[in-house]
Amino acid sequence: MEAVLAGDRRAVARAISMVEDGAEGLAELSSGLFGHTGRASTVGLTGSPGVGKSTLAGELVRLARHRELSVAVLAIDPTSPFTGGALLGDRLRMQEHATDPGVFIRSMATRGHLGGMALAAPEAVRILDASGKDLVMVETVGVGQAEVDVAAATDTTLVVVSPGWGDAVQVAKAGILEIADVFVVNKSDQEGAGTAARDLEQMIRMGSPMAWTPPVVRVSAQRSEGLDELWEAMARHRQHVEETGQLEQKRRDRLLREVEGLAGERLRGRVREALADDPALADEVAGRTTDPYRAADILIERMSRPGNP
Amino acid sequence: MEAVLAGDRRAVARAISMVEDGAEGLAELSSGLFGHTGRASTVGLTGSPGVGKSTLAGELVRLARHRELSVAVLAIDPTSPFTGGALLGDRLRMQEHATDPGVFIRSMATRGHLGGMALAAPEAVRILDASGKDLVMVETVGVGQAEVDVAAATDTTLVVVSPGWGDAVQVAKAGILEIADVFVVNKSDQEGAGTAARDLEQMIRMGSPMAWTPPVVRVSAQRSEGLDELWEAMARHRQHVEETGQLEQKRRDRLLREVEGLAGERLRGRVREALADDPALADEVAGRTTDPYRAADILIERMSRPGNP
Repeated sequence: MEAVLAGDRRAVARAISMVEDGAEGLAELSSGLFGHTGRASTVGLTGSPGVGKSTLAGELVRLARHRELSVAVLAIDPTSPFTGGALLGDRLRMQEHATDPGVFIRSMATRGHLGGMALAAPEAVRILDASGKDLVMVETVGVGQAEVDVAAATDTTLVVVSPGWGDAVQVAKAGILEIADVFVVNKSDQEGAGTAARDLEQMIRMGSPMAWTPPVVRVSAQRSEGLDELWEAMARHRQHVEETGQLEQKRRDRLLREVEGLAGERLRGRVREALADDPALADEVAGRTTDPYRAADILIERMSRPGNP
Repeated sequence: MEAVLAGDRRAVARAISMVEDGAEGLAELSSGLFGHTGRASTVGLTGSPGVGKSTLAGELVRLARHRELSVAVLAIDPTSPFTGGALLGDRLRMQEHATDPGVFIRSMATRGHLGGMALAAPEAVRILDASGKDLVMVETVGVGQAEVDVAAATDTTLVVVSPGWGDAVQVAKAGILEIADVFVVNKSDQEGAGTAARDLEQMIRMGSPMAWTPPVVRVSAQRSEGLDELWEAMARHRQHVEETGQLEQKRRDRLLREVEGLAGERLRGRVREALADDPALADEVAGRTTDPYRAADILIERMSRPGNP
């Protein structure tokens, strides 16, 4: 814990491995660090595979370093037996920052952690926050609801699209319009970038009025174009949520949801044990004589009996 | 319940709306139908937005009808305030089947259902199963872990890619390799389809040996090409899981996980109430003096005390 607070890279890496594995001692470590968190700005990046999130993250690291901010990037991976759960590609792309002590980059899978990404990611972010990083970026792979939720659980959420990604209907399908604080149209040098930006702007206009209207910024991460404008948009959003008190409120809400999630997962673990201890009940469910609702009721009732754990 | 069992379309539609909303009476309905389920074959379709899943689903409906099988398609949508939570597009594309009494097509959002898609989808599938459909297809939008899990919770899971979708690394990123029973390379008339198919085949060869090696089938749903081969591949997989006993084992495992999920969500609801009843504890968490783990412990301990609900 002391080493994490001192910003020791190996200690931080080990702490995040503990989060990945759901290792013993994690609760204790997390508790110890908790009072030292809340200082970092957190930024989420989400968008379909192939839109260039990793390259963009690399460019944002460069901008942050230019402003003398220390920065961490947490890339949340789906775990795949085919790839061994690690996105080597992402790490390689960031190699220009590999020797900079002010930068910490880490891919994270979440196989062992109860509650999956939704609970593991904020924990890992807090470790990076406690280690003294000014800016913590969370990059998620895929545009599923769970991934979007993880990226949205940050102070400022960037939704990245690219011209080749698809039309406005695809954007709507991905369910990511409502969580964007800033839209990034990457690969702005490619055909269709203008159309993509205009489509997004039109969809935003057509939607319900919002306290904060997400700007649509065109960048080319590959060519390092438009990045100052993006940084500026992120800074404006940050200022907006700070001044309106939204930042504090959103952080509070996220923490309380996390408490619910942690308690819920522990209780679910107890349910699992109770079910494993009752093969007769499992057979009745599999044989379709006792339905899942009744089986759940039976298990809950049994767990609530005095004397049971 | 009687009307659902009789296959009454309006009753089935209403029952699925109850699942969407997490309506009262749902547990009772589900319990009543449970003994009448397990007869339908279930097929999941997953893949990135834009790969043509909806068109492919439409073609599979056509093939099933040609074989005189009744069929239902359940399209799981992310709920978006921008689109009103419904993918009208999907439904429009399926209009050629709209007047066929042997076909039931439904988009489903899951805002009200505790436990989200993971618990709502199997419930909706069972309603369609109980209504007498021979084949129930589940189409998910997005390639997030939760969506992939929903599509994988079927007897046969199709993973759909298209040549434009990205290279093999993107496939690996999406974390969908391990859940595919059949790979479908759609838009086989487009450039790059052969490369996409070969990349997939190579990744499969490179992976761990499996009891069932997922075939890679090239189709053009738009041009109705390659669909008989796809149907044949699905039938072979079905035969494989039936003969090896995997079908029964997988269904059992899914039901038991569902029991865990249902019980877990109910207990999580109780945690939420307990936290809402204790603003002082919430303030301590928000003020970072009591960490989420300790707060979870406090709530669980309080809930387990005799006399508490």
